[in-house]
Amino acid sequence: MFALDQHPSGRHFLQIPGPSPVPDRILRAMSLPTIDHRGPEFAVLGKTVLDGIGRVFQTRHPVAIYPASGTGAWEAALVNVLSPGDAVLMFETGHFASLWHRMALRLGLAPEFLSVKGTDSDTGLPNAWRRGVDAGLIEERLVADREHAIKAVCVVHNETSTGVTSDIAAVRRAIDAARHPALLMVDTISGLASADYRHDEWGVDVAVSGSQKGLMLPPGISFNALSPRALEASKSARLPKAFWAWDEIVEMNRGGYWPYTPNTNLLYGLAESLEMILGQGLEAIFARHQRWAAGVRTAVKAWGLPIQCADPAVYSPVLTGVVTPVGVDADALRKLIHDRFDLSLGTGLGKVRGRMFRIGHLGDCNDLTLVAALAGVEMGFRLAGVATAASGVEAAMAYFAAHPAATPLQSAA
Amino acid sequence: MFALDQHPSGRHFLQIPGPSPVPDRILRAMSLPTIDHRGPEFAVLGKTVLDGIGRVFQTRHPVAIYPASGTGAWEAALVNVLSPGDAVLMFETGHFASLWHRMALRLGLAPEFLSVKGTDSDTGLPNAWRRGVDAGLIEERLVADREHAIKAVCVVHNETSTGVTSDIAAVRRAIDAARHPALLMVDTISGLASADYRHDEWGVDVAVSGSQKGLMLPPGISFNALSPRALEASKSARLPKAFWAWDEIVEMNRGGYWPYTPNTNLLYGLAESLEMILGQGLEAIFARHQRWAAGVRTAVKAWGLPIQCADPAVYSPVLTGVVTPVGVDADALRKLIHDRFDLSLGTGLGKVRGRMFRIGHLGDCNDLTLVAALAGVEMGFRLAGVATAASGVEAAMAYFAAHPAATPLQSAA
Amino acid sequence: MFALDQHPSGRHFLQIPGPSPVPDRILRAMSLPTIDHRGPEFAVLGKTVLDGIGRVFQTRHPVAIYPASGTGAWEAALVNVLSPGDAVLMFETGHFASLWHRMALRLGLAPEFLSVKGTDSDTGLPNAWRRGVDAGLIEERLVADREHAIKAVCVVHNETSTGVTSDIAAVRRAIDAARHPALLMVDTISGLASADYRHDEWGVDVAVSGSQKGLMLPPGISFNALSPRALEASKSARLPKAFWAWDEIVEMNRGGYWPYTPNTNLLYGLAESLEMILGQGLEAIFARHQRWAAGVRTAVKAWGLPIQCADPAVYSPVLTGVVTPVGVDADALRKLIHDRFDLSLGTGLGKVRGRMFRIGHLGDCNDLTLVAALAGVEMGFRLAGVATAASGVEAAMAYFAAHPAATPLQSAA
Amino acid sequence: MFALDQHPSGRHFLQIPGPSPVPDRILRAMSLPTIDHRGPEFAVLGKTVLDGIGRVFQTRHPVAIYPASGTGAWEAALVNVLSPGDAVLMFETGHFASLWHRMALRLGLAPEFLSVKGTDSDTGLPNAWRRGVDAGLIEERLVADREHAIKAVCVVHNETSTGVTSDIAAVRRAIDAARHPALLMVDTISGLASADYRHDEWGVDVAVSGSQKGLMLPPGISFNALSPRALEASKSARLPKAFWAWDEIVEMNRGGYWPYTPNTNLLYGLAESLEMILGQGLEAIFARHQRWAAGVRTAVKAWGLPIQCADPAVYSPVLTGVVTPVGVDADALRKLIHDRFDLSLGTGLGKVRGRMFRIGHLGDCNDLTLVAALAGVEMGFRLAGVATAASGVEAAMAYFAAHPAATPLQSAA
Repeated sequence: MFALDQHPSGRHFLQIPGPSPVPDRILRAMSLPTIDHRGPEFAVLGKTVLDGIGRVFQTRHPVAIYPASGTGAWEAALVNVLSPGDAVLMFETGHFASLWHRMALRLGLAPEFLSVKGTDSDTGLPNAWRRGVDAGLIEERLVADREHAIKAVCVVHNETSTGVTSDIAAVRRAIDAARHPALLMVDTISGLASADYRHDEWGVDVAVSGSQKGLMLPPGISFNALSPRALEASKSARLPKAFWAWDEIVEMNRGGYWPYTPNTNLLYGLAESLEMILGQGLEAIFARHQRWAAGVRTAVKAWGLPIQCADPAVYSPVLTGVVTPVGVDADALRKLIHDRFDLSLGTGLGKVRGRMFRIGHLGDCNDLTLVAALAGVEMGFRLAGVATAASGVEAAMAYFAAHPAATPLQSAA
Repeated sequence: MFALDQHPSGRHFLQIPGPSPVPDRILRAMSLPTIDHRGPEFAVLGKTVLDGIGRVFQTRHPVAIYPASGTGAWEAALVNVLSPGDAVLMFETGHFASLWHRMALRLGLAPEFLSVKGTDSDTGLPNAWRRGVDAGLIEERLVADREHAIKAVCVVHNETSTGVTSDIAAVRRAIDAARHPALLMVDTISGLASADYRHDEWGVDVAVSGSQKGLMLPPGISFNALSPRALEASKSARLPKAFWAWDEIVEMNRGGYWPYTPNTNLLYGLAESLEMILGQGLEAIFARHQRWAAGVRTAVKAWGLPIQCADPAVYSPVLTGVVTPVGVDADALRKLIHDRFDLSLGTGLGKVRGRMFRIGHLGDCNDLTLVAALAGVEMGFRLAGVATAASGVEAAMAYFAAHPAATPLQSAA
Repeated sequence: MFALDQHPSGRHFLQIPGPSPVPDRILRAMSLPTIDHRGPEFAVLGKTVLDGIGRVFQTRHPVAIYPASGTGAWEAALVNVLSPGDAVLMFETGHFASLWHRMALRLGLAPEFLSVKGTDSDTGLPNAWRRGVDAGLIEERLVADREHAIKAVCVVHNETSTGVTSDIAAVRRAIDAARHPALLMVDTISGLASADYRHDEWGVDVAVSGSQKGLMLPPGISFNALSPRALEASKSARLPKAFWAWDEIVEMNRGGYWPYTPNTNLLYGLAESLEMILGQGLEAIFARHQRWAAGVRTAVKAWGLPIQCADPAVYSPVLTGVVTPVGVDADALRKLIHDRFDLSLGTGLGKVRGRMFRIGHLGDCNDLTLVAALAGVEMGFRLAGVATAASGVEAAMAYFAAHPAATPLQSAA
Repeated sequence: MFALDQHPSGRHFLQIPGPSPVPDRILRAMSLPTIDHRGPEFAVLGKTVLDGIGRVFQTRHPVAIYPASGTGAWEAALVNVLSPGDAVLMFETGHFASLWHRMALRLGLAPEFLSVKGTDSDTGLPNAWRRGVDAGLIEERLVADREHAIKAVCVVHNETSTGVTSDIAAVRRAIDAARHPALLMVDTISGLASADYRHDEWGVDVAVSGSQKGLMLPPGISFNALSPRALEASKSARLPKAFWAWDEIVEMNRGGYWPYTPNTNLLYGLAESLEMILGQGLEAIFARHQRWAAGVRTAVKAWGLPIQCADPAVYSPVLTGVVTPVGVDADALRKLIHDRFDLSLGTGLGKVRGRMFRIGHLGDCNDLTLVAALAGVEMGFRLAGVATAASGVEAAMAYFAAHPAATPLQSAA
């Protein structure tokens, strides 16, 4: 067998903001024999996952499940509702917003990239990469678009590169206030099932998500949650589309099937994941992530290092970006920590490369996993000569001990 | 846990022409914990699978591995080398050739669909769905295309809907004889790693394949094997492309990584599959499939039923289509067999719906699996009142007993 | 990884009378992380399996579960209720009865081995190895034992070496008719959960069973089902005992725990097995085995070969012994079949070595699995030059097609 | 499926001194299909594990592998070489030595239990439970045994209840110095493959071990490593024995088989474990455990709590016992920690019940796992109001950062 595990001892700590650790229950569900995707058993599976994923998106409308990883679902969102040369309004919140913008360019759209200007005086990092979507800027721009040339507003819900969770309801209000018909398209790849997301209530037209974050699956499945307006728009949109086209998927999904071969074994995992998530309830899961995030931020503050997200109102419950002191190469530090302590941290991406690292606190974690991750970072600081104000591990332990989880760990047995 | 297995006892016999049965070794490899797709362990995995898959395609050129199922790789092949309105020559060999043709239309290309005309007098089925690609027709059409308007010739290697394996080398010779610059694009989704396929030797420019057939994996990964000419063509092709674009994939693959999140756990399975396949050798695997196919055809002949493929020169080693007598609904028969004997057979697709069923004999099978499948069919005939000339099971047993496999089952221990 | 699978392709057909094929659900349940056998989660597991196994034995009294394979449970049965030099009455039904007899000797008991005398004229095999327990002989012997020197009667319920399922209720009636206080001890290692077994109703004092047969688990767990009389006897019995002693086990089991480390991961599998078995119902499972056995015997009769069990009243639902023609080495035949067709058959043991082989039809099987096994045998006959009267495969197919299972395979979906 | 995992999120931290965490590689190896234990594939497996386990015991003599958990191997050691009423010299080092002593009594032997007398003034705990075997006491007693009535000296290598690793070579020297023929029998259940153990070099006659500690397997397999003298003694020993008898096992093992059904799927796991252990080398594994133990002790010292083992020369590399302050119920503390932080710690057993808990640092652990466990304890102290001198987590982090492992975590890739 190919040697997948180069670690001589113990389990790797995978504390990147996705892929998140996959629960053993899900890994095992995925290892059941593949079945005929045209047979009667499959229809039961298909209907089960389609019903469950809608409940996680909090929508009554169709959700398309793609046998493809998340970047594909970005493309699907764009090609189903837009036509060559269409203007779309996008908002720079970090690396993934930038990649989605670049994709829109590649696909022949005319994206406009709104951005908060300037750099932060403390860290020298771009302000746009430390804050969420400014709904006021969007409203202003839409009001100016008297001709309604702009066909869609595209924003990232939880920006995985920075640890900022933008206020999607505010974006909806901005569009409505501008009385603008643009569709609202939201990337919640790393938000879904970790941060609160309400598809119907917030009036989102197309939401994009993936499997390897809050859903606690390996990568390989992605999603488009739709609205009636999005489905209507897809009928006349003229970008070429085939694999990503919603029409046949939505039609076939009625019977629990797909127009082409679905990702059967990952759907087994999805069924297991949905059973876990819906069994616990979304509220409990969101609260759990908020608590973890608060504990981790307590540690970062104790270290005396800046949190990448500069606005406490939009701290992400999913990950926390930690800005390293000037002169400290965050990637060299990450490598040292990885090699010495079997801990994977997220790298700084794009405009913040080398200046920060990211701690994922999502999915199948618990208090001790996070304290261990913080300990790995803190030992790394020590070895790399990075000065800290106080022990972050100590601060996190104090936080977790003082703040019990709302849901007890153990069912009374 | 979601109840994936509705069978009260025993293992289901999955004898459709893909997804094929997944070996236990592969299912277990897939259940190892997901790792960071940007970390050093991943690069080792990435390089290993990229090297191995090239050896299976028999190519020295790049192979793009998509975290998407096979239909996506069809789209990838088209959008990377073609521009809106481009003429492409496709050849009707059955349902999957027809679907690829329909996809080309959807993507805004101008496909021309060559076809062998007429219907077969015995069965009333279309001749085109019982024979392979006629290279002579292709050559004729290319010679007529003096302006070289045709940009690509697209053919299916192993037509999964009919059980016909076309002669790809002959198509290459036809293009060369016509001195035509069209690219040769081949769908070998169900051929790769079961039927002989030689990418470089046959001069194929883009080959399309998937994981759930000869590679013995669940669905969810697909492939484009490239040629230098295809890579060159991709630089100027103007169909919009982002997720499928080769450029960034080929670039990132040099280091063992992907531009976006790959399908990590299916890549674990692929590494295991490649170790199994390359360890046994492609020649042994091709011979094994040919032997199984011969055994199964012996049974069909004993039953006195027509084999869907009317030309023995292009019998598929992967599956055999069985034409049911007029008046027998092949799908009702399949359902009866499934419900009584836990055996999945392939349905008749498109123009042959209800008139035939397909027996898959690919991947992780052995003699007894196939005899069991034939027994399930034969008991189904009996229950459905389908008259047969003789026992196909008896004939297959005679064949398998008389023809030992070239490679002994057991290593001398 | 150690290469466990030497088969180049396909799944091995394990048609020996145990270990039986283990369902994927159970294999995966066994692969969950080991937990603390003194923690609260374990108690839930412990109580669940103890409750369920009692229902399978059809007893309201304690069942001891040993973290040891079945031979250990034989020893446990003897050492808990007997004292050095005690007389026990055992009955020769085949190899396993003989091994249990030999064990009693080794442990310092004074076993008497009753046996049906003579050899069969047709096959030259010992009559005792072709028939069940003769309750009349037991009654006769007990009546003669006026002093009640005999402390226990030990019989095998389903003799795995011959394919005979003895009538245990008749043995109970014999003991009662003789008004003898001997304990009734029954080996139902290969009978439990395949052949009807009723611990309380039949008045069995100690039953011995194991995991790798009808329970569809790997080997490694074994059982003693007890009666109040057996528990009472254990208090004064003087054979040394520690690991096997019931007292501490029964005491600790009340809380769901064991006095020493239990076989945690096999208990996970047992919980899964019990959920499957009790969910389907014992009646359905017994009927399923009877139907399989009838189908297999139809094949043996078509071949014109003697069934090892000479008395149709005690045909085993679990396995069928097939006597090979004089001059045919059954083990050479088995090896040929194994090496050519990836099929494991049971060897002839003890007094019938080389003269017969055994086909297991128990546990996680289905019609096609058994037809495949019969086909492997039939091809083996052909290759070894063993003449047969007719096709057993044909006969079995006719049987299975004509006799639908009482429980449909598929739930209506 | 039976719900094995009651934890709503994240992986449980199993830091008891066995069962230790089982690596994913091993869990998956165990989930491969069960094979025929009389077939040719099995012989390869059998020989592989028998060869490997001998290398781990560091012996050239036979090792019996039992399909039974560790307590059974204690019994096997006694019944194979001793006769009813035999005198054996045992040494009280803690709970497991006491249980072995009790077993000897139950089996009808005449064990004498040597013990260091008195209680410790600091903690009020028995001295015997804080120290190792005193070889001088053994020598003295053997010298006094002029008749050589004592047939065996039984000592525990690594006492799992206290965290003391006794000097076995010293016991050998004591026996030799007394010129006494008693056999040396050693329980290294929790020592093997974590603490240095040299069967042949130290002149041990029978060693007892189990699977669920340093071998990183679930419970269910156990071992007797033998010496030629032990094999010789077994020929005339008169305690009844059958299941545990070495003779047939050693005989059958020559061919890679067992006299009765072995624990096939756990042997798959053992093969995987041995490949991991021997691939890394015993020296590296022993050093790894010593380093972990030193780090954990640093934490306990920082807390200002007594380490159960009072003699630094015999600190265990496998586990550390932590004595709680008078008035603190160690089990209430453990429960609080378990329920709040998903961490299992070892309970205080026998004479130290409620006065201490045990931290396991063996098998498939790493630095972060141990820091996490220490953090769980430290948060538990905080919640339970247990005062500590300083942060043990801080001390352990300082230790681990300052002392890199001898073997780097990652192979250079």
